[in-house]
Amino acid sequence: MEKLILDGNRVADSIKGNLIDRITELSKKGIVPCLATILVGDNPSSKTYVRMKGNACKRLGMQSIRIDLPADITTDELISQINKLNHDPDVHGILLQHPVPHHIDERAAFDAISIEKDVDGVTTLGYALNAFGAATFPSCTPAAIMAILEYYNLQVEGKHAVVIGRSPILGKPVSAMLLNKNATVTTCHSRTINLEDIVRLGDVVVAAVGKPNFVRGDWIKPGAIVLDAGYNEGNVGDVDFNECLENAYAITPVPAGVGPVTIATLLKHTVDAAEKSLLR
Amino acid sequence: MEKLILDGNRVADSIKGNLIDRITELSKKGIVPCLATILVGDNPSSKTYVRMKGNACKRLGMQSIRIDLPADITTDELISQINKLNHDPDVHGILLQHPVPHHIDERAAFDAISIEKDVDGVTTLGYALNAFGAATFPSCTPAAIMAILEYYNLQVEGKHAVVIGRSPILGKPVSAMLLNKNATVTTCHSRTINLEDIVRLGDVVVAAVGKPNFVRGDWIKPGAIVLDAGYNEGNVGDVDFNECLENAYAITPVPAGVGPVTIATLLKHTVDAAEKSLLR
Repeated sequence: MEKLILDGNRVADSIKGNLIDRITELSKKGIVPCLATILVGDNPSSKTYVRMKGNACKRLGMQSIRIDLPADITTDELISQINKLNHDPDVHGILLQHPVPHHIDERAAFDAISIEKDVDGVTTLGYALNAFGAATFPSCTPAAIMAILEYYNLQVEGKHAVVIGRSPILGKPVSAMLLNKNATVTTCHSRTINLEDIVRLGDVVVAAVGKPNFVRGDWIKPGAIVLDAGYNEGNVGDVDFNECLENAYAITPVPAGVGPVTIATLLKHTVDAAEKSLLR
Repeated sequence: MEKLILDGNRVADSIKGNLIDRITELSKKGIVPCLATILVGDNPSSKTYVRMKGNACKRLGMQSIRIDLPADITTDELISQINKLNHDPDVHGILLQHPVPHHIDERAAFDAISIEKDVDGVTTLGYALNAFGAATFPSCTPAAIMAILEYYNLQVEGKHAVVIGRSPILGKPVSAMLLNKNATVTTCHSRTINLEDIVRLGDVVVAAVGKPNFVRGDWIKPGAIVLDAGYNEGNVGDVDFNECLENAYAITPVPAGVGPVTIATLLKHTVDAAEKSLLR
């Protein structure tokens, strides 16, 4: 059987290619789409992610503002920073890098982001709008997974999709988006019994576990589409790629799978937000 | 195998029994919990539902206000009625009877209900809070299903729950609530292929289809728990009760299954809202 390696860089380039003209048009109106990223503390991975996102903005001629806050900031102080950005007309998108230190109420901080600037799709209201098929900015990684399926014209309607993971910005929203595309969706998690047997039912499998090489080759139904949203230390996904390639029809690698599309989606949302700001 | 007929009236009585003291306490403070129900048009089933809810309030010593609006009211007019109730301090809960006539933007009307008074759990924000396990008032029918499971001490953790239906006030929220109780959850719908085979995987099956006797006996895994959220003309559920009783371990009948618990849940939410109003 022929295999399809789902090339995230190709999908990302296609998304970014569509943005260039729009960014040029905006600049004629004196607007440079601007993403503000907030980093609390100095987690090395988080620093890398934030830097990657900033660089990605620069390469497309977008602006990025980086706000570094000390690890011992309070929730209130963080929220007051977010509110400043909410009210800054030159900022179109706000990204609070996840995870924040434990003493911070992350949910409260996420929900302080105004819905118009929630380009990372992390607010509670944004989640529900997405689940109801009405979100402006769905969470970026779930949206990236859907963009990969769309780019490669892989239909999910009527198919059985198995999502491993139920986090509010990944497992839950990707389950909702697959459901809205008429897949039959099973959401699994750490308490799932007989996980392997359930994954074997999947015509589409999304791994969002956060454990390196967690999904094994013999869990994959022959001909399935496998999407790896994991990104663990050492550039390793949640899916054992070599093993799963055996049974899968289509599969995303790590790196160069879901990751670059997630960043491209974030840029797209920021440009969308900049365009919408003109209408207000 | 012994069978367990899940008696909705018993569960409802237990919920309502807990309310009586709370209503007495509130009355000492000069507060009578009050539910406002809005009926647009004169759909006979809707009229019956609204009357049942009003009567249920009366029997517990609660107040109910009924607002009847003509079928040709506009969305804006309906929303302005809802806003009046939002601002009325004597009204603790607001229920807009579903469905409204087609020309009305039902989602906009639902979302006009203030979150503090959304005792029926229909707002977009309320949906997301519920999905994140943080809702004050989850949708009543899903909450009723969870209350039945709890009353009979039926654990769902690790079990495979299959939900048939994906509406924003039933299939989607009950899927989310089962997931939050650590079930592995599959959501099915009209586009699901091989529905019967998928239902056969269910240790727990929730039918929320709106088609009489839709779920057949041989779809049920031996020993499964079957919850019928359907309520079709002639007091018929979505589950063929007699057939499904064969394989099921526990099953809700229609009538006297999920229905009375849904109403009891609505009353409980209204009392909750009245108590919370004291804190504001």
